[in-house]
Amino acid sequence: MSTPLTLYYAPGTCAQAVLIALHEAGANFEAKRLNMAEAEQRSAAYLAINPKGRVPALRTPQGVLSETLALLLYVAQTHPQAKLAPLDDPYRLAHMQEFNSFLASTVHINHAHRPRAARWADDEAAHKAMQAKVPQNMRDAFTIIEQHYLGDQPWVLGDQYSVADPYLFTMAGWLKSDGVDIQEFPRVAAHFERVKARPAVQRALA
Amino acid sequence: MSTPLTLYYAPGTCAQAVLIALHEAGANFEAKRLNMAEAEQRSAAYLAINPKGRVPALRTPQGVLSETLALLLYVAQTHPQAKLAPLDDPYRLAHMQEFNSFLASTVHINHAHRPRAARWADDEAAHKAMQAKVPQNMRDAFTIIEQHYLGDQPWVLGDQYSVADPYLFTMAGWLKSDGVDIQEFPRVAAHFERVKARPAVQRALA
Ligand SMILES: N[C@@H](CCC(=O)N[C@@H](CS)C(=O)NCC(=O)O)C(=O)O
Ligand SMILES: N[C@@H](CCC(=O)N[C@@H](CS)C(=O)NCC(=O)O)C(=O)O
Repeated sequence: MSTPLTLYYAPGTCAQAVLIALHEAGANFEAKRLNMAEAEQRSAAYLAINPKGRVPALRTPQGVLSETLALLLYVAQTHPQAKLAPLDDPYRLAHMQEFNSFLASTVHINHAHRPRAARWADDEAAHKAMQAKVPQNMRDAFTIIEQHYLGDQPWVLGDQYSVADPYLFTMAGWLKSDGVDIQEFPRVAAHFERVKARPAVQRALA
Repeated sequence: MSTPLTLYYAPGTCAQAVLIALHEAGANFEAKRLNMAEAEQRSAAYLAINPKGRVPALRTPQGVLSETLALLLYVAQTHPQAKLAPLDDPYRLAHMQEFNSFLASTVHINHAHRPRAARWADDEAAHKAMQAKVPQNMRDAFTIIEQHYLGDQPWVLGDQYSVADPYLFTMAGWLKSDGVDIQEFPRVAAHFERVKARPAVQRALA
């Protein structure tokens, strides 16, 4: 019997958030690891799966889906017993999507200007100039997360664990290589340890 | 009686997609226009509404929401009779969120490197290098939209009009100023005219 879901991912990337969500959901899935060092995400075989040449992608019985925040919502919606999103409350669901969109469109982009500066300019001096600003831009974005999004409760949505938590956990894991000490952000640092201690997260990282 | 929803927006920005969605939904809302030429989005008064200093933001009875794709989903979910999203089908909803996430995290970002290059580097030569790559990056992203997302049916989701359509319409409206002729993408160009002709869109743009 074929497994219904296949996740294409690489360790440490944004796809890790989806891998964790699948473990949290108790989903029946297979994980296919791409070799990013050899640019497997740009191989013809993978471009036939995801023409954008990025991870994550998720093969479902109905077709392939991509984009982290969409996959996170899909996992939550198709595994409602795991309660990974406030599916019955449009305001809280929008708040979760708002947070995930901030991660995807601001935090992820600020980070990507270090390893992927070549996406946005062709000359090397410009890459260096972009890389030089990454610590400040990550700091600015995590200041918003620390002060505006995280409160004194354990999770991004307060007392409810959701797919927003492994997504934040994954990006907080990028801070060090971006030249920022996570301890500058006490709530983010505590959240990071809290997510890391979860059994499903340990299984996903193993 | 106070209106339940207030949209903070500026014409031509990504917030236009939410303005159109509110008109399509027949929502009871008020629109507050920010003066971007005077950087009103960074005024203390607006930062108290949206600490990220960007449009759109939507004041709801439960609190303020931001991020275009989250607001689009919220408008669709709170006005189900307008059928602006496939709310009952997790796969199709994830597909819509995937498309909207591609707009927010790739297309919007590619565009922003022209007017907002200063976000990602401090020196002027780097800004110029980023701006020089904008036409190619917009072309690459719209090639994916043309070939992978748009088919021969009228809307992004095929025969169902959804909030993805005004969002694409809004970004397709940026192509010209980014140095790309929309006619290079026949499906995108036809989609643009189709959206523009809708009465709710005409009302929103008026
Ligand atoms: N907007 C996409 C971005 C996906 C993305 O950029 N993935 C990175 C890993 S974190 C990738 O595959 N990079 C490979 C490359 O750029 O070649 C999402 O949120 O999933
Ligand atoms: N990720 C946000 C981005 C919002 C955004 O960048 N808005 C632009 C207008 S399209 C803005 O307010 N720019 C003002 C500025 O950068 O000062 C979203 O999707 O809503």
